[in-house]
Amino acid sequence: MDISKFFLGLKLDSPSSTPLYLQLAGYLAGKIKEENLLPGAKLPPERELASLTGVSRTTAINAYRHLEQQNLIRTKIGSGTFVAENSSTQPNNQLAVPWSQLFIPFPQSPVSSILRELISASATDDNISFSAGMPDPAFYPLETLKSLINEHSNLLKGINFGHFPTEGYEPLRHTIAAMLASQNIAAQPENIMVLSGSQQGLYLISKAMLEPGDYVVIESPSYIGANQTFQNTGARLLTLPASGSLNLNLLEDFLIRYRPKLIYLIPTFQNPTGRVIPENDRKAMLQLASRHRVVIVEDDPYGQLYYEKEPPLSLKSLDSYGGVIYLSTFSKVLFPGLRTGFIAADPVLINRLAREKQYIDLHSSNLSQLLVHNFLTDGYLPGHLKKVRDEYRKKRDTMARAIRQQCGDEITFTLPGGGFYLWCHLHAPLTSRMLLHETAKTGISFVPGEVFYASTAGEQELRLCFTSQNVALISEGIRRLAKTLAQLSKIKKSGASLSTASIRPII
Amino acid sequence: MDISKFFLGLKLDSPSSTPLYLQLAGYLAGKIKEENLLPGAKLPPERELASLTGVSRTTAINAYRHLEQQNLIRTKIGSGTFVAENSSTQPNNQLAVPWSQLFIPFPQSPVSSILRELISASATDDNISFSAGMPDPAFYPLETLKSLINEHSNLLKGINFGHFPTEGYEPLRHTIAAMLASQNIAAQPENIMVLSGSQQGLYLISKAMLEPGDYVVIESPSYIGANQTFQNTGARLLTLPASGSLNLNLLEDFLIRYRPKLIYLIPTFQNPTGRVIPENDRKAMLQLASRHRVVIVEDDPYGQLYYEKEPPLSLKSLDSYGGVIYLSTFSKVLFPGLRTGFIAADPVLINRLAREKQYIDLHSSNLSQLLVHNFLTDGYLPGHLKKVRDEYRKKRDTMARAIRQQCGDEITFTLPGGGFYLWCHLHAPLTSRMLLHETAKTGISFVPGEVFYASTAGEQELRLCFTSQNVALISEGIRRLAKTLAQLSKIKKSGASLSTASIRPII
Repeated sequence: MDISKFFLGLKLDSPSSTPLYLQLAGYLAGKIKEENLLPGAKLPPERELASLTGVSRTTAINAYRHLEQQNLIRTKIGSGTFVAENSSTQPNNQLAVPWSQLFIPFPQSPVSSILRELISASATDDNISFSAGMPDPAFYPLETLKSLINEHSNLLKGINFGHFPTEGYEPLRHTIAAMLASQNIAAQPENIMVLSGSQQGLYLISKAMLEPGDYVVIESPSYIGANQTFQNTGARLLTLPASGSLNLNLLEDFLIRYRPKLIYLIPTFQNPTGRVIPENDRKAMLQLASRHRVVIVEDDPYGQLYYEKEPPLSLKSLDSYGGVIYLSTFSKVLFPGLRTGFIAADPVLINRLAREKQYIDLHSSNLSQLLVHNFLTDGYLPGHLKKVRDEYRKKRDTMARAIRQQCGDEITFTLPGGGFYLWCHLHAPLTSRMLLHETAKTGISFVPGEVFYASTAGEQELRLCFTSQNVALISEGIRRLAKTLAQLSKIKKSGASLSTASIRPII
Repeated sequence: MDISKFFLGLKLDSPSSTPLYLQLAGYLAGKIKEENLLPGAKLPPERELASLTGVSRTTAINAYRHLEQQNLIRTKIGSGTFVAENSSTQPNNQLAVPWSQLFIPFPQSPVSSILRELISASATDDNISFSAGMPDPAFYPLETLKSLINEHSNLLKGINFGHFPTEGYEPLRHTIAAMLASQNIAAQPENIMVLSGSQQGLYLISKAMLEPGDYVVIESPSYIGANQTFQNTGARLLTLPASGSLNLNLLEDFLIRYRPKLIYLIPTFQNPTGRVIPENDRKAMLQLASRHRVVIVEDDPYGQLYYEKEPPLSLKSLDSYGGVIYLSTFSKVLFPGLRTGFIAADPVLINRLAREKQYIDLHSSNLSQLLVHNFLTDGYLPGHLKKVRDEYRKKRDTMARAIRQQCGDEITFTLPGGGFYLWCHLHAPLTSRMLLHETAKTGISFVPGEVFYASTAGEQELRLCFTSQNVALISEGIRRLAKTLAQLSKIKKSGASLSTASIRPII
C-alpha cells in the first residue's frame, strides 16, 4: 500500500499552540480510527515520515512515540512501525480504564470551565483581550521583588524554606493584621490566615460551612468563581440584584423564607458591575444580618483600587455583630501569579479552615509569603498603590471616552469609581455573544454578561476590563469593537439573521 | 479598689511563643471572666499597667487593645479604661456567633491535626527534632535559585506573573514529562498537572473519586496525610500490612469483597517504614489491579533518594493496564517551602482534577513553577541529587550506628535503602508515647508509631527522620534518647508505673 497518499492533504499549523508532533499524531490516529489505515499496515520509517510531512525527524519520532503510548501503533525492532493489530482496544484485549465513569458527579453548567478559560486565555492570547480581570503587567513590582531577594540576606535562608504553619508565615500574619488596622479593621494575627489566593478562601468556607441543599445569597451578576464554588458544594443560590440600590426587602424575605447559611458580597467596586454599596446600606445590611444571625462573606479584592474618593468603610470594619468573614488578595494590587490572599475572621473559623487547608496544600508557597511580607514591611505598598491608582484612572477614562465617542448610544455604562471593569449595556438589537462572535475575528475579546448570572440574564451586557492593556491598545481595541458593532447593527436593521450557534463564551 | 494586687502573682514568660501582650491580656481576661474584676471597675492607665507588670508601654497598650476588641474592656477618652459593663456578653446584648455550630461535621480523630502540628513543630522548635520528614536545610539550593532569578532575564518578566493555566506552566509540564521519560515513565505534557505539593494530588483525587462509604486500600502504617485525606471524604479504609512481603492474597480478598475505588501505595522507601516493594510483587500487584479494574495511586516522593542501588521501576512505568495515577513532589529533593509537586495520569483525569483545582487556588504559584522549571532545564537536578544522596547516606549510617551502639537490643530497625526514616521497634517494656513523654523533656522529639496506623497499632514503634539534622545533632540526639530509654527501662523493670495520661502525640 502506498501510504504516502495519506499525507497529501495534511496541513500542519506551525504557529498553533498544539505542538507539531501532536498534530501529526492526531492526524494519523484519525486515519487509524477511521480504518483508512488498517491493523498491521506498515507505516513509513521516521525519516520518510518527516520528509513526507515536512517536519523534523524529531517531530516524526515524537509523533510515533505518542501513538505507541496510545497503543495505536507498534514498533518491531529491525522490521519497522505498524498499525497495532488491536489498535481499537487496549493491549492484552483489556478495555481502557473508563475514567470519566469513575468520577463522582460534578455540577455541569455552561460556564463550568470558564474560570480556567479566562485565566488561560490571558496567558496565550496575542490579541487585545478585555476579558480577564488582570492588573497591567507593566506595573508588576518585579524589580522590587528582585531587590528584596538580593538585599535581604535574611530572606533566602534555609529556615524560611521548610514548612510554614498552615495558617501562614507568622510575621506575615502580623503584617497583614497591621495593614488591616490601617483600614479600620480590628484584627490580631490569630484572626488572619494566609491563602493561596482569595479564591481559596471561598473554597475553604464552602467546604467548612455548606452542605447540599443549603442556601447562599449572592448578588447577580457576581464573581463567577464564587458562584461556581458555592454551587459545587450542592448549595442553592438566592440572587439579589447587583444593580440599582440594595434591595433590603428582598434580602430580608430570603433570610426569613430560606434561612441561608451565607450572604456573599463584593461591596466595593463589585465584579462585574463596579457598584459600591453606600455606607447607609452597609449598616442596614449588617443590622439585618445580625437580627437574622446570618454570616456575611465580604470579598474585597478591589477596595484599595479607587480612582476618585475613598470608598466607604468595609463591612468588616463596621461589624459589631461579629458575623463578617473578610477576604482579600494581593493578586489585583500586586500580581496574580503570587497566589497570595488572606482571610480575616474569628479564630474558631480560622482553625476550622486551617484543618481543611492542611489537606489541600499543607500551607501556601513560602517564597510568595516572604516576598509579600517584605514588600509590606519595607513600606512599598502605599507608593505602589498611588502609582497604579493614577495609571488605572487614565485607562478607565481612555476606555470610557472612546466608547462614548465611537459607540454612540449603542453601549452605555456607569463610570465606576474604582476596580477593574466597565460594565456595559448593549442597546443595539444584539446579544453580547453575537457581538463577541464577530469582534473575536478582529482579535478583540471581552466577557459576555450572562456568565456572571446564576440565572438566565445578561444577554445584552458585557464586561470590559480596562486595567490590563496599555492606553494605546485600549483605544485600538475600542476602535475595532465600535466598527464591528456598527456593521452588526446595520445588518440587523436590514433584517438579516445572525448565527449564534456553537459560540464558545470565551475564546 | 486597689487593682495592683492582681498583678502581684503574675509571671509573664518572655521566651514563650505567645507574645507578652497576649499573655497579659489573657491574664486580665481571666480575672474579668472569674469576676475578680467586676463590670465598671477602673483599670490602671497604660503606663501604670506597664510598670506594675514589668512590660513595655507598647505591650500594655496592645494588651488593652486586644481586650477592647474582645469587648471585655472599654476606653472612655479622658476618663480611662474600665471593665466593660456587659463584659460577659456581646455588645448590644447580642450573643456571640456560635461558629463551631455552623460548621459541617469534620471527621475527628486523635490525630486529626497532627499534620499541622508536625509541620509547625519543625518551624518553631529549637530542640533536636526527628519528627518532621524534612530535607536538611543546609542543602536547600537557595543560592542556585537566587542565581536563576538574577541571571535569567526572561524569568522575572511581566508575562510570567499573570495567570498560568490551572494544569500548570506549560514549559514546566514539558520539563516534568521529559524528566519522567528518564525514569521510564511514558508521559506527554497533557498527562502532567503541576500541584501545590503532592498532598494536593491526594486531595484532588479524593474529591473527584471518593464518596462517603467508598473503600480505599491503604498500607498500614502509611503517610498520615493520605490516611486523613481519604477519611475526610467519608471513605472507609482497608488496611494492608506494610511490613514483611506484600500480602497479595489479602489484597485480592479486599478487591473481591469490597470493590475498593483506590489502592494507595508508597512502593519505594515507604513512609514510615522505608520498605521497598520488590519488582516481582509490583508486577503481581499490577496484574491484580488490572484483573479487578481498580485504580492504584502511586505516591513516590522518595524514589530518587536512594543510598545503595537504584530501586525497582515505579508501578507507573510498569503499568500496561493504564490504571496507575502517579504522584511526586520536589519538596523532598529540593525543599518543602516550594510547594510544588505533580501528578502524571490520563488526560481525562487531569481534566477532571483541574476543574476542582480551579476552585481551590486557580493555579499554583508562578514563581515556584518558574524556579523549578529553570532548575530542571539548566540541569541542576542530577548534581543536587548526587550530593544529597551522599549526605543522607552518611546521616542514615550515623543514626543507625548510634542506635545500635547505645540502645542495645531495646530498639531494632531494618536499615532502609533510601528515603528519610528509620522505623524503629521498641523492645523495652514501654510504649513509644511514654518514651516521647520523657525524651521531650530533654529536647528530643520523634513521631510515635501509632499515628501512622488507621487502626489501633504501633504502640511500640517510632519514626525517626534522619535527614533533617546534621551529623553532630543526630549523634547528640540519639545519645539523649538512649539515656532516657535506659532510665525508663530501669524504672519499668523495678515495677513502678509511668503516667501516660494527657500526652499530646507531638510536641
